[in-house]
Amino acid sequence: MTETASEHALSLLDRYWRAANYLSVGQIYLLDNPLLKRPLEEVDVKPRLLGHWGTTPGLNFVYAHLNRVIRERDAQVLYVCGPGHGGPGMVANTWLEGTYSETYPEIAQDAEGMRKLFRQFSFPGGVPSHVAPETPGSIHEGGELGYALVHAFGAAFDNPELVVACVVGDGEAETGPLAASWHSNKFLNPARDGAVLPILHLNGYKIAGPTILSRMERPELEQLLRGYGYDPIFVEGAEPMPMHREMASAMDRAFDTIAAIRQEARGGGPLSRPAWPMIVLRSPKGWTGPAEVDGKKVEDFWRSHQVPVSNARGDADHRAILEEWMRSYDPADLFEEDGRLKAELAALAPQGERRMGAIPQGNGGLLRQELKRPDPAEFAVEVPHPGEAIGEATRVLGRYLKGVMALNEAERNFLVFGPDETASNRLDALFELTDRRWLDRTESYDVSLGPDGRVFEALSEHLCQGWLEGYLLTGRHGFFSCYEAFIHIVDSMFNQHAKWLKVSRELEWRKPVSSLNYLLTSHVWQQDHNGFSHQDPGFVDHVANKKADVVRVYFPPDANTLLCVGHHVLGTWDRINVIVAGKAPAPQWLTMEEAKAHCEAGIGAFHFAGNVAEGEEPDLVVACAGDVPTLEAVAAVDILRRGLPGLKVRLVNVVDLMALDTPAHHPHGLADEAFDALFTTDKPVIFAYHGYAPLIHRLTYKRTNHHNIHVHGYREEGTTTTPFDMVVLNEVDRFHLAIAAIDRLPQLGAEGARLREGLTAKLAEHSAYIREHGRDMPEIRDWSWPYETAARAGQD
Amino acid sequence: MTETASEHALSLLDRYWRAANYLSVGQIYLLDNPLLKRPLEEVDVKPRLLGHWGTTPGLNFVYAHLNRVIRERDAQVLYVCGPGHGGPGMVANTWLEGTYSETYPEIAQDAEGMRKLFRQFSFPGGVPSHVAPETPGSIHEGGELGYALVHAFGAAFDNPELVVACVVGDGEAETGPLAASWHSNKFLNPARDGAVLPILHLNGYKIAGPTILSRMERPELEQLLRGYGYDPIFVEGAEPMPMHREMASAMDRAFDTIAAIRQEARGGGPLSRPAWPMIVLRSPKGWTGPAEVDGKKVEDFWRSHQVPVSNARGDADHRAILEEWMRSYDPADLFEEDGRLKAELAALAPQGERRMGAIPQGNGGLLRQELKRPDPAEFAVEVPHPGEAIGEATRVLGRYLKGVMALNEAERNFLVFGPDETASNRLDALFELTDRRWLDRTESYDVSLGPDGRVFEALSEHLCQGWLEGYLLTGRHGFFSCYEAFIHIVDSMFNQHAKWLKVSRELEWRKPVSSLNYLLTSHVWQQDHNGFSHQDPGFVDHVANKKADVVRVYFPPDANTLLCVGHHVLGTWDRINVIVAGKAPAPQWLTMEEAKAHCEAGIGAFHFAGNVAEGEEPDLVVACAGDVPTLEAVAAVDILRRGLPGLKVRLVNVVDLMALDTPAHHPHGLADEAFDALFTTDKPVIFAYHGYAPLIHRLTYKRTNHHNIHVHGYREEGTTTTPFDMVVLNEVDRFHLAIAAIDRLPQLGAEGARLREGLTAKLAEHSAYIREHGRDMPEIRDWSWPYETAARAGQD
Repeated sequence: MTETASEHALSLLDRYWRAANYLSVGQIYLLDNPLLKRPLEEVDVKPRLLGHWGTTPGLNFVYAHLNRVIRERDAQVLYVCGPGHGGPGMVANTWLEGTYSETYPEIAQDAEGMRKLFRQFSFPGGVPSHVAPETPGSIHEGGELGYALVHAFGAAFDNPELVVACVVGDGEAETGPLAASWHSNKFLNPARDGAVLPILHLNGYKIAGPTILSRMERPELEQLLRGYGYDPIFVEGAEPMPMHREMASAMDRAFDTIAAIRQEARGGGPLSRPAWPMIVLRSPKGWTGPAEVDGKKVEDFWRSHQVPVSNARGDADHRAILEEWMRSYDPADLFEEDGRLKAELAALAPQGERRMGAIPQGNGGLLRQELKRPDPAEFAVEVPHPGEAIGEATRVLGRYLKGVMALNEAERNFLVFGPDETASNRLDALFELTDRRWLDRTESYDVSLGPDGRVFEALSEHLCQGWLEGYLLTGRHGFFSCYEAFIHIVDSMFNQHAKWLKVSRELEWRKPVSSLNYLLTSHVWQQDHNGFSHQDPGFVDHVANKKADVVRVYFPPDANTLLCVGHHVLGTWDRINVIVAGKAPAPQWLTMEEAKAHCEAGIGAFHFAGNVAEGEEPDLVVACAGDVPTLEAVAAVDILRRGLPGLKVRLVNVVDLMALDTPAHHPHGLADEAFDALFTTDKPVIFAYHGYAPLIHRLTYKRTNHHNIHVHGYREEGTTTTPFDMVVLNEVDRFHLAIAAIDRLPQLGAEGARLREGLTAKLAEHSAYIREHGRDMPEIRDWSWPYETAARAGQD
Repeated sequence: MTETASEHALSLLDRYWRAANYLSVGQIYLLDNPLLKRPLEEVDVKPRLLGHWGTTPGLNFVYAHLNRVIRERDAQVLYVCGPGHGGPGMVANTWLEGTYSETYPEIAQDAEGMRKLFRQFSFPGGVPSHVAPETPGSIHEGGELGYALVHAFGAAFDNPELVVACVVGDGEAETGPLAASWHSNKFLNPARDGAVLPILHLNGYKIAGPTILSRMERPELEQLLRGYGYDPIFVEGAEPMPMHREMASAMDRAFDTIAAIRQEARGGGPLSRPAWPMIVLRSPKGWTGPAEVDGKKVEDFWRSHQVPVSNARGDADHRAILEEWMRSYDPADLFEEDGRLKAELAALAPQGERRMGAIPQGNGGLLRQELKRPDPAEFAVEVPHPGEAIGEATRVLGRYLKGVMALNEAERNFLVFGPDETASNRLDALFELTDRRWLDRTESYDVSLGPDGRVFEALSEHLCQGWLEGYLLTGRHGFFSCYEAFIHIVDSMFNQHAKWLKVSRELEWRKPVSSLNYLLTSHVWQQDHNGFSHQDPGFVDHVANKKADVVRVYFPPDANTLLCVGHHVLGTWDRINVIVAGKAPAPQWLTMEEAKAHCEAGIGAFHFAGNVAEGEEPDLVVACAGDVPTLEAVAAVDILRRGLPGLKVRLVNVVDLMALDTPAHHPHGLADEAFDALFTTDKPVIFAYHGYAPLIHRLTYKRTNHHNIHVHGYREEGTTTTPFDMVVLNEVDRFHLAIAAIDRLPQLGAEGARLREGLTAKLAEHSAYIREHGRDMPEIRDWSWPYETAARAGQD
């Protein structure tokens, strides 16, 4: 035990806490009369009362106590507020410490500033009721619950001096992502990473009922937390002064333990996973608020969750309760006449960047250094002729990522995340340089496991996503590879991050952070080992609903294009980039030079496959987006050209999906003239698409030739079978594409009909063959088949 | 301790296990020579080797031991197999017990049947590599990991005699949903529900690395599991016979404990939550498989995850390893010459419906009884004239749900789920009849909490969704209400359930189960208390990607239509129904009779709002889907009719969103003639839509008048503000809609321009007013304003 804070210090701290509580109530209720210098009147109260009081006094309590330890130890502390709906508390505290007014000078630290502070909260044109990008010092919104602890760990990785204090509400603790997040301590390296101090806030209730953790008997709860690998320190009660004593002592013990863990780990000996301290704060919900309203229990009950006194404007009795409540904090004891916090209280806040509202990690763009990236050409695949080389796109990208990792070794600002699939997704070149992060026991036969590994694998997309978000928001870089179908697991986390970026970009003071980069692989068309449950290419549809300037979607058709796209996205900021690419051996189309040009344009003709020059008008356009659809499109064009030598065909490949959108809607949208030049204004377009067809219609809906675009995409047909059978089941294969083209070219007459008949027979033949032999017909398996012609065409 | 099984019984059980292992390996590898009556040749081996061996021997081990306790105790056991990729094991066991051949007579219990069994596995036209709807006795695919335990609890609710044995892989245990699922025991009533027996299978490895739980030190793991509320029984080792002894004893202890808990709970005394037993099975991954291949460790390591001997067809050495491995099970000791399982082993399987492949809960449609539903008219809101009554739609639905609950009280086959939002979503009438399910400590001041409650609230959408899935798949009915934005948390669970239904519907022997019904409320347009993070109406876009016949989406515009839709969906089967409806007080449009007719049609004109008769051609169509957009559309039409008395306007309301789709694509699609009659073939259509606009374009894309449809929807603009300000920010408000109409009606000339100018001024006025006063202008707040005219129109 260390010496606890003096009674005098604690009574000052109690006043500071009361000031924060006062300001929190004021934000929820008041339009005017901020210092209560006159009796509270109807017009002083907001017409719409909105906000969440219940969690707020606990958040303020934690903030005040963290301030103390920061000052005493010159600690670097980032506050992650899981119950983000306790927004008034975080705003109140940053105003008290001065960071709010520095960020928003119009909200000064005086009576008028306090009035504005109150008024703007949850007020149209003001600030949201939750912790949000607008809140100084925050990297976490907490609107959708579940991600506080995983964000905290993401922030702590590679931040050796940082302590991330993370308040976890007992409601949030019921969510799946949070329940899994406790195990993040298995990935925290005490020598090279910062610390996370979880503060489990048991205030007992959610919106309308008790929480699971708060009603467990204490021994059971303690076992759970120890089982999660923590050493819990309990702070329980309702009387302020004893609680201050307990909390001060708990904080000292936690910070002492962290210091000891660091010292031990940084002494150079072998590393192991320590039992990290955590605090369990059991305090009443709505603490210090009205005990009862209208004869019903409010304090220490779920009725204090939002606005405890609901009709304080219209009802004089309610208004009296509110006034009594606010006066119970004794504002004159806290603030000067002019609204400034009393000097002896202001002295309790840390200084400068040590203030939790001003810590640079809370505005990570301030710290962000550009990622050093090697020239992708160094990793290029040799492509003598289109279709002649075979490559595994993601394996090639893995080598590039290793190159990135090597260049930034000293900065320690690049991490790779994936749910146990980094090697399965063929990014295993990384393991030539680094390990999977692992702090627990290892065995002699383990491979690529270590405490300093820079690849993070947990079988939880939630953890991968959340760690990466926390890491990016504190100014670093990262990459997340995932099975395509299972990225839907984090649809809602993607949503929240996209929303965070959208709002952050509107705030001048928030500096750009690195983009969140996804590689979606083991995709819908490659399901040899799995099957229907592993087939869903719809994440990009979900992505396309977000603000256009925040999102990008790429479908590189081969390894060199994937290299170019991967290189590009790692240099971007404030975006979410989605790359979809396969891991299987596949024909390569473009040299590095060609790939660069193609990716820069985002869309373009594959002249080697078609037989019309630029500017010439084709009879037919075959378009494609995605690696497997590109292969099938090339093969379909080959079939058509062999069978119908007079037909003029153009093959258009789309790398940057948003190029299909109009420039008015998306910054990457292709100009209409260029679009018409590629797709014609009146010829049939057969579009082989990787995902669900409607997205292509949605993007091209305003284009001249839209009504001629016929899209073949995934239509929810599939099982465990070969990739080629998968495309056949969904009619994205060469035969169906060629048939679709013939059906839109009546001018072909009998010649077309004959070819069509042959293709229909091929499909029947395929179907019989694969069911008999368990694999594709030799002509499908023989990859050179469609590409011989393609290569020849390339020589024209 | 009970008496353990005899050594003789265990040696028989060991042979049974070997038989299952033999059949599992055979499925992964063999095309022919199933009984190895001749040396293994190249042609006997499949050309593509696919499947997951690693988890399978453990699954088989559990199955064999469950068989023993089922026989000895006449127990009802449902096997939920979390590691669903261990499909070969589940298929092998159901074949051994006879249920596979009863389900699929072409796969007989003889040598030829065994050959077909092997061949079909992971083979085109055969069965998937995972446990799937095709697998008898299964309610759980396990393709996407995380939901085994929550499904198991869903199955156990209201199934008092059932024991759900649930194997949780240590990989799966890292996921968020699984981590939260352990707490499901807080909701299990030992008197009225069945039991769940979790079997945590620590085989140590995922695809390419160790698992978190397997490398925790045992005391820490034990604390974690006790903290989750279980009494773990550890079974650890690698030697078969000692492991059989330990497992038999563990199973006996677990089933004895369950019996004791039941007896105690069913004695009529007060209920509390017991420490339920669970088994921790630590056994080698790829147990009994090759120890090493190519000099690398395989057994008891991650290399055994999929196919341990990868080139058994082409490489003679690999083939020799495979043959030795398969012969190590001694097939002649297990099977008769003709391929039948030896009689003394066949006798080890339970009989009839006690076989885990034949238990009716594994094919819940067999048990499903139609839900009794009251007449929704009993709950109708009185609507004297359109827009004259004010109602809260979901509150009215809550009364209907209470009615449903009351009618089915005896059957105990209806549950309501929600993440702590049942009351917030205004379904609180339910609490007049029942409680929130709660087994832990209660306080005197708690309300609506009890061990027998039929409303389940945990702050986890994953738990709500998973419990409901398990409950439905075992033949019961349910309802899930959720904040609209946060339903994305279960996007991927929805995916998997939709896929399960799609495949189940193709299997004659799988009987229909009740539909999964969502009510999405607290929706994007009602964010007074929350804000941008709570705004995402995109779940229906996600839904629309699934097989058309599985999904339905409803936007009832008021309470009576919500009643009709709610009543309808509770009578359906094998579908997923999504209902989006608000909870705020709002004007009511239709009487119950009108609502019934409107919902049956799915789409139709609101003649009270427009001024053209059926058959008459309007100048303009204003369409709407969603309650708030309907209000704005009615108001916009009112504005236009007042300002432009000569204008002929039709208002079309869409309840059943899929009515917009073509009948060729969706069974609810409106016929083209009817669509054209409503929307005209050439007049402008202004469409006010609840969600993201592109979905309306996608659905109407093939309609004649599609190019004239202008959709206003949510465009990711929002904060904490009034509902009306929300629609203004996204241009779905009456003023923007009317302006959009005027812009498409050039024939209005100066008259239109004047009105337009006035509307633009209104928007500016709104913007200034709300930022000044924090609420809407009186003319917006005065709900009667737009509806006076509407009501008048209704009298025409």
